[in-house]
Amino acid sequence: MIGFEAMNDGHWPAVWAMLKPVFRAGETYPQPVDISEDEARSFWMGLPLRSYVALQDGVVLGTFYIKPNQPALGAHVCNCGYVVGEAARGLGVGGQMCAWSQAEALRLGYLAMQYNLVVSTNARAVALWQRHGFEIVGRLTHAFRHKRLGLVDAFVMYKEL
Amino acid sequence: MIGFEAMNDGHWPAVWAMLKPVFRAGETYPQPVDISEDEARSFWMGLPLRSYVALQDGVVLGTFYIKPNQPALGAHVCNCGYVVGEAARGLGVGGQMCAWSQAEALRLGYLAMQYNLVVSTNARAVALWQRHGFEIVGRLTHAFRHKRLGLVDAFVMYKEL
Repeated sequence: MIGFEAMNDGHWPAVWAMLKPVFRAGETYPQPVDISEDEARSFWMGLPLRSYVALQDGVVLGTFYIKPNQPALGAHVCNCGYVVGEAARGLGVGGQMCAWSQAEALRLGYLAMQYNLVVSTNARAVALWQRHGFEIVGRLTHAFRHKRLGLVDAFVMYKEL
Repeated sequence: MIGFEAMNDGHWPAVWAMLKPVFRAGETYPQPVDISEDEARSFWMGLPLRSYVALQDGVVLGTFYIKPNQPALGAHVCNCGYVVGEAARGLGVGGQMCAWSQAEALRLGYLAMQYNLVVSTNARAVALWQRHGFEIVGRLTHAFRHKRLGLVDAFVMYKEL
């Protein structure tokens, strides 16, 4: 049984252990591959972000954030980012985080959710978001500089809540 | 003959006179309709933005900015925003700024240009960007809270340079 709670400073070491290999890989997030721990913490926990952890028996399995995707007149659309720890891959954590984050976003008053840069080669993520109701509303050709593959396309994915 | 130059502090009063009614109208930019002059200045001139003015005989007719649309692995795609002064509407300033900004973006090393939130009801702008080679790559339903019309769709527009 996976539970969710707002992230706090005590979760950071476990969360950083998850984020670090993801950023270093340079295959899914646009942040610098050599991002420092402080920069990563600021990105993942800084205001006006809200960040969360997915827990099982007190162990952090995954983490995500919710933030407004635009200022005032676009602030009813949120943006989220999700990372599942390597040890927890394949357990459905990503899907549960996606579903729970949508409910939480509604609770926070958001009307829609937008992912701005879903890397097209991350097929598992694309399929997962589609199963959770997201549509590919746009293709950004060569918009992501994949560390191994070079310039690849990215998708804008969107869902009204 | 319209010329372009990097914006400096001396241009700010003329630029603010153009931006203010646009923000107050709440029909095209997502910034708060009651944005303060300081906030607007920070948005329009803050780093890592580059901002520019379009001039004719020393008079500022329009202004725009160029900035990376994403961090490192997406930083080869730029984002721009343009505003034409009310007195200069209909003179082709917007189109000239769009064309010049594309050349400048190439010079700065960008490979593509992305507009994240083109308000669908701003038909003149949509048509103008299309004439300058941009495609509507995505529709974001109800993503913009138009001050007069309420929730309206917005477009993601994109062009490889």
